[in-house]
Amino acid sequence: MSSVAPLEQVSSNKTFEGELIKYKFKSASLGGLSANFNLFLPPNASPTNKVPVLIYLSGLTCTEDNGAQKGGFLGPASLQGIAILFPDTSPRGAGIEGEDDDWDFGTGAGFYLNATNPKYSSHYNMYTHVTLELPQVIESAGLPIDWKRQSIFGHSMGGHGALTIYLNSPKQYRSVSAFAPIANPTKCPWGEKAFKGYLQGGIEEARERYDATELIAKQKDPVHILIDYGTHDNFYKQGQLLPENFLKAGRDAGYDEVQVRVRNQEGYDHSYYFISTFARDHIYFHANFLKA
Amino acid sequence: MSSVAPLEQVSSNKTFEGELIKYKFKSASLGGLSANFNLFLPPNASPTNKVPVLIYLSGLTCTEDNGAQKGGFLGPASLQGIAILFPDTSPRGAGIEGEDDDWDFGTGAGFYLNATNPKYSSHYNMYTHVTLELPQVIESAGLPIDWKRQSIFGHSMGGHGALTIYLNSPKQYRSVSAFAPIANPTKCPWGEKAFKGYLQGGIEEARERYDATELIAKQKDPVHILIDYGTHDNFYKQGQLLPENFLKAGRDAGYDEVQVRVRNQEGYDHSYYFISTFARDHIYFHANFLKA
Repeated sequence: MSSVAPLEQVSSNKTFEGELIKYKFKSASLGGLSANFNLFLPPNASPTNKVPVLIYLSGLTCTEDNGAQKGGFLGPASLQGIAILFPDTSPRGAGIEGEDDDWDFGTGAGFYLNATNPKYSSHYNMYTHVTLELPQVIESAGLPIDWKRQSIFGHSMGGHGALTIYLNSPKQYRSVSAFAPIANPTKCPWGEKAFKGYLQGGIEEARERYDATELIAKQKDPVHILIDYGTHDNFYKQGQLLPENFLKAGRDAGYDEVQVRVRNQEGYDHSYYFISTFARDHIYFHANFLKA
Repeated sequence: MSSVAPLEQVSSNKTFEGELIKYKFKSASLGGLSANFNLFLPPNASPTNKVPVLIYLSGLTCTEDNGAQKGGFLGPASLQGIAILFPDTSPRGAGIEGEDDDWDFGTGAGFYLNATNPKYSSHYNMYTHVTLELPQVIESAGLPIDWKRQSIFGHSMGGHGALTIYLNSPKQYRSVSAFAPIANPTKCPWGEKAFKGYLQGGIEEARERYDATELIAKQKDPVHILIDYGTHDNFYKQGQLLPENFLKAGRDAGYDEVQVRVRNQEGYDHSYYFISTFARDHIYFHANFLKA
């Protein structure tokens, strides 16, 4: 392992008896740009008591702050003694022509993949950023996280990120959950646009690695998956999420409702008002596995 | 009572089994400008079951959204069967010269008073807006709120608003609480600036009606007051809040720690990370009185 960038603390807020700390560092995976993340440490975390960690991946247009401020995750995580890592959603300021033109591509919309299109491949590597780089820089900084106990969850584009990262490395993560995930992105407009832009092989390449419905179909290991979506979610109605495709692929692959649980929540929409309602459910779901 | 402006629904989000609805209407108290507010209705509210209501007044620079999105109030309020009304913090777009120049005066900084300086008195009447107009327009719209059971709370400038509104009308509200309130505004820079600007009689006029520490000193009725502030709150350290003055005036007036409870929370700051930590405490405090 080459030398790891040091962390610089940007701010710190005491909350729910723990601490939410914002850090920045020079991110190699994002082309050397400065990258932010938030880390919630529960009150029982200490140099002699490393705690399990849950990674929260946010949706389109978001930063590392949305989930921390609006998710309602910190109270339950404090009670359960679980850290939460909130990465950003893309590199910032890569200077690539056109990256700020659309809200659903480029800045704020990294889709948690490693770009193979040369135009983006120096900077848009959120997959490596989340799975490898952040654990490395946090571990090197001596923060009290036990990386042998990590789980992952997310919202919308971040639900896509969480599911695909988990299904590609089910040994690295103990469980996954998602709020209104983009669950079959090779078959929806958001995913098609992202994959055609970021990947040299386009949608074909994405099917191999970045589509949760494709990945669950060929999965063999035991899995622990929870998904919630709202029946009044406009993006669900528009066919951007397709959780029913994921559910069908999971059942066809032989997973029962304990291993792959997909719940449709009557009347809820795509907002953080929906997410915060089920925040405690998700934290407690992960606690079952993180503290086992 | 003259004719009451009708409400127009702007949006609605299901949350914690209840509903958060954003409304707008033409506000007479704010000079005929369009005014927004959010109203959370718990799941048990219905035409045949009017529910008690808690009014949340937000701080400087905020709108009707900050408390709804970041406060952490909705889950506990849902469980307790309490509605929450989130007003805005000032008129918007009054077109008064200079009202958008500073973040701590004018737009976003109405200070929950009725202006007597003619420059502002047609529009800056947040006191009437909160205490009289909003209950009237919501009642006229037939929403299931029992206005005989209302309490009030707030943050920073909104904590000042909640305390002064309560102490001026302790029969109208059953209880009051505040996070990091501006508790003695005639003796701090924020308050001095606001009162000199909005009030013809300046700070002298404010002492009569808009300073919680002055008001508790001459209060005779039983009161139910809870205040939390953080010891790492920079505005507290700068002397903008002065909760110790309020506490002393309350004790001097004969109120014990059940009637006037002021808690200093070690290490917490001025942010919503602090507020959300103690959100449930405050909702449950008010529930004691609202459901009695």
